[in-house]
Amino acid sequence: MFTLPQKESRAPTTCPGPATTQDLGSSCDNGPERECSRKPDQKLYGVGDPTATFSSGSSYLSSRGSIIKWFWDSAEEGYRTYHLDEYDEDKNPSGIVNLGTSENKLCFDLLSWRLSQSDMLRVEPSLLQYPDWRGHLFLREEVARFLSFYCKSPVPLKPENVVVLNGCASLFSALATVLCEVGEAFLIPTPYYGAITQHVYLYGNVRLVYVYLDSEVTGTDTRPFQLTVEKLEMALQGAHSEGVKVKGLILINPQNPLGDIYLPGELQEYLGFAERHKLHVIVDEVYMLSVFEESAAYSSVLGLERLPDPQRTHVMWATSKDFGMSGLRFGTLYTENQDVAIAVASLCRYHGLSGLVQYQMAQLLQDRDWINQVYLPENHARLKAAHTYVSEELRALRIPFLSRGAGFFIWADLRQYLSEGTFEEEMLLWRRFLDNKVLLSSGKAFGCKEPGWFRFVFSDKAHRLCLGMQRVRQVLEGKSQVAEDPPSSQTQEPSS
Amino acid sequence: MFTLPQKESRAPTTCPGPATTQDLGSSCDNGPERECSRKPDQKLYGVGDPTATFSSGSSYLSSRGSIIKWFWDSAEEGYRTYHLDEYDEDKNPSGIVNLGTSENKLCFDLLSWRLSQSDMLRVEPSLLQYPDWRGHLFLREEVARFLSFYCKSPVPLKPENVVVLNGCASLFSALATVLCEVGEAFLIPTPYYGAITQHVYLYGNVRLVYVYLDSEVTGTDTRPFQLTVEKLEMALQGAHSEGVKVKGLILINPQNPLGDIYLPGELQEYLGFAERHKLHVIVDEVYMLSVFEESAAYSSVLGLERLPDPQRTHVMWATSKDFGMSGLRFGTLYTENQDVAIAVASLCRYHGLSGLVQYQMAQLLQDRDWINQVYLPENHARLKAAHTYVSEELRALRIPFLSRGAGFFIWADLRQYLSEGTFEEEMLLWRRFLDNKVLLSSGKAFGCKEPGWFRFVFSDKAHRLCLGMQRVRQVLEGKSQVAEDPPSSQTQEPSS
Repeated sequence: MFTLPQKESRAPTTCPGPATTQDLGSSCDNGPERECSRKPDQKLYGVGDPTATFSSGSSYLSSRGSIIKWFWDSAEEGYRTYHLDEYDEDKNPSGIVNLGTSENKLCFDLLSWRLSQSDMLRVEPSLLQYPDWRGHLFLREEVARFLSFYCKSPVPLKPENVVVLNGCASLFSALATVLCEVGEAFLIPTPYYGAITQHVYLYGNVRLVYVYLDSEVTGTDTRPFQLTVEKLEMALQGAHSEGVKVKGLILINPQNPLGDIYLPGELQEYLGFAERHKLHVIVDEVYMLSVFEESAAYSSVLGLERLPDPQRTHVMWATSKDFGMSGLRFGTLYTENQDVAIAVASLCRYHGLSGLVQYQMAQLLQDRDWINQVYLPENHARLKAAHTYVSEELRALRIPFLSRGAGFFIWADLRQYLSEGTFEEEMLLWRRFLDNKVLLSSGKAFGCKEPGWFRFVFSDKAHRLCLGMQRVRQVLEGKSQVAEDPPSSQTQEPSS
Repeated sequence: MFTLPQKESRAPTTCPGPATTQDLGSSCDNGPERECSRKPDQKLYGVGDPTATFSSGSSYLSSRGSIIKWFWDSAEEGYRTYHLDEYDEDKNPSGIVNLGTSENKLCFDLLSWRLSQSDMLRVEPSLLQYPDWRGHLFLREEVARFLSFYCKSPVPLKPENVVVLNGCASLFSALATVLCEVGEAFLIPTPYYGAITQHVYLYGNVRLVYVYLDSEVTGTDTRPFQLTVEKLEMALQGAHSEGVKVKGLILINPQNPLGDIYLPGELQEYLGFAERHKLHVIVDEVYMLSVFEESAAYSSVLGLERLPDPQRTHVMWATSKDFGMSGLRFGTLYTENQDVAIAVASLCRYHGLSGLVQYQMAQLLQDRDWINQVYLPENHARLKAAHTYVSEELRALRIPFLSRGAGFFIWADLRQYLSEGTFEEEMLLWRRFLDNKVLLSSGKAFGCKEPGWFRFVFSDKAHRLCLGMQRVRQVLEGKSQVAEDPPSSQTQEPSS
């Protein structure tokens, strides 16, 4: 289910503070790209150029080393502001509230309890010795069982198709490197989780070709930002016409930042498109268990009866989002293609995770009683309550937004608050939020072609959400101020 | 102290089994290289070509992906033989004994005890959230204190110069990428830990230029395989003359596979050479606490009073060897160069280790009482006893070998057992050992220019060492057989 109220006329706003290129969390700047048409609204695709705004290097580093450092510095600039002044209920109540980083902070109590149980601390010689770089067999077996169950696979998935490693960032890096030559590209529908830009580029030197989606519902579309095969075809042809070789398609399902869920029929169409063009498909399903709306029926690509091209279909999942532990660094690949599995495994020398953590993850994933009866119901209830609260706040502000009951975020349309429809104006609004001590991620960081969209992360405790949304309201109502004094009465639970 | 008895005349041997290109553990094949002179014995340097023997690719992979997979397949071929038939005292007493992989298997009892203590299982929200990719500050502070103490640093080392990640393999990969352009190279004295070839090549596309060292003591040398500045200069000039741009020098200290320890004066000379040529120096000190001979005085490069070029001196250490936990995946960089530290940190998105493991490592490193009073004395005593046993076995066989009281291995001269001084003959001998169920690493895998050297890993339990050495003896005395029956009386402790 999604909600998109009628757009209101755009109110002119003042624009305090200089424009910056700051970004944060997943909201890294993807840089400019070559566009395929004259008017911004008619852009159909774009070829990403991650280093277009890179300027000076270091005499100690290679040119690629300087670019790699520059990616850090660009992100760091945004982080620095936040980390120097992080909100803390007791110690720094006037600090910055982070509604920008997509982490689930609602279930630390449940996770801390589970990860502290005595079965989690097992130290065996084999866990301390060099592992099979694909991952210990006991863990790959557990991952296969886990994915078979939660992805509703028509046949049991196999441990030999599983490769485990330290997170999906690493998996993007490895897949880009083993599937593409330097300079080749993946198609990706926008808006998309912007960090993928660097994941495929920093080591792999692989680019993204953006398939621009529109908020406006036209033609046969049934919802905003709808991906269609026609749009994929046009982007692919456009890239080819510019001499850019496309090797694959990246799909994020549930989608980040839209919260969209692809229908099984849609998935089949996208996979069919890829098969016709012999493109690999990387399906990022890291939010697959974070579908909190009962009415939202999720279908994993591993649950489809038939894959058009199983040898070119590669699925990734991790505990970072669905188990709220982005700091634990556990991710997994599932692919029937043994060439791909082995090539990724070969790079896992550089993406390995501790044997002790592998043991812990196997213990966690096999505890189906706790997951099904405690963790998932409670996590979904908390996500839904938090989502409801932020949704209602946005409705009260008459802000249109998208949300289909999955993920940690709401994709909100703040175009009415830009004096002009430009990314400079979007950045000014982002800066005004930050000046008023609330951190959001703006649409440019997601490759959105329309300036003025923002991602609101709601998977946080009530007192932080309330304060964050209060500060958002202050900015949008032109009443923003630097919150020097701790606000009172910010701790009520959001209504569910 | 090293031991090199007079060489005996080479006895002709029979060569059962076909030549293969199998390798194992750290004994990956480094492939052919371009040589600089006519006679093998006079080779001064070589430019590594890691993919010279690569043939066919996969239609699903990029060309680099196919090469990456090929590295796995080559190693896997050797591993397969071993893993299909691993020795187990009870379940498979006629299985293969592994004296090839450099792991310390002597102290699992101590480590299991320490890692199972209740202070090791702490689950805090911050450990489950996205970390600072340089590593959590509490761990970097602990690493700085730890290295200050054990490296005898003249001034306290600083947390801001520390970057932690999931092992030194990753660190080689990251440093190669940020310091070198594609196709550039590092100098490395041979024999050397052969896996570095792939660590700098797979992601970074960086090559090695071998500085060939000789077993024969000539000129001003005081020991076999001695590295001198003259040899470094010649290799550097040779590489330049072939159009290969050299960006740095890799030093392993204590050396693998020689077990050598560089004297402070030698270190200063090598660092001075690097400074004159503006070369980075990567100093791999992963065996620094595995110096088990009291008379062997070890000097870390971080303990030198003055570094000739601190901005180009980068030190790596890990728990893999010194704490016998290669499966735990913890390594660290120490560099004063903030450009390098930040560039490596930027790549640590792909080399991150779990927050829970970071906490455990901080607990371990700060437990100075246990390390100094329990772990290190016991570990050194056990290493020494095991070393003494294998040394005596080799002496009894009249096999010349090198060993200076550091590391897990003895570098042994089996040239007398080759019918010709070729690497084909070396491989045949390696195969005869494997056929007689004992796995060793042969010199070619270490880039040694003289065929016939083997690395014997001794850091294993007595019963495995005894059986392994018995099987070695059988091969060398021409009495080898496939051991179908469990041998008896193989469990006595080695004499110390």
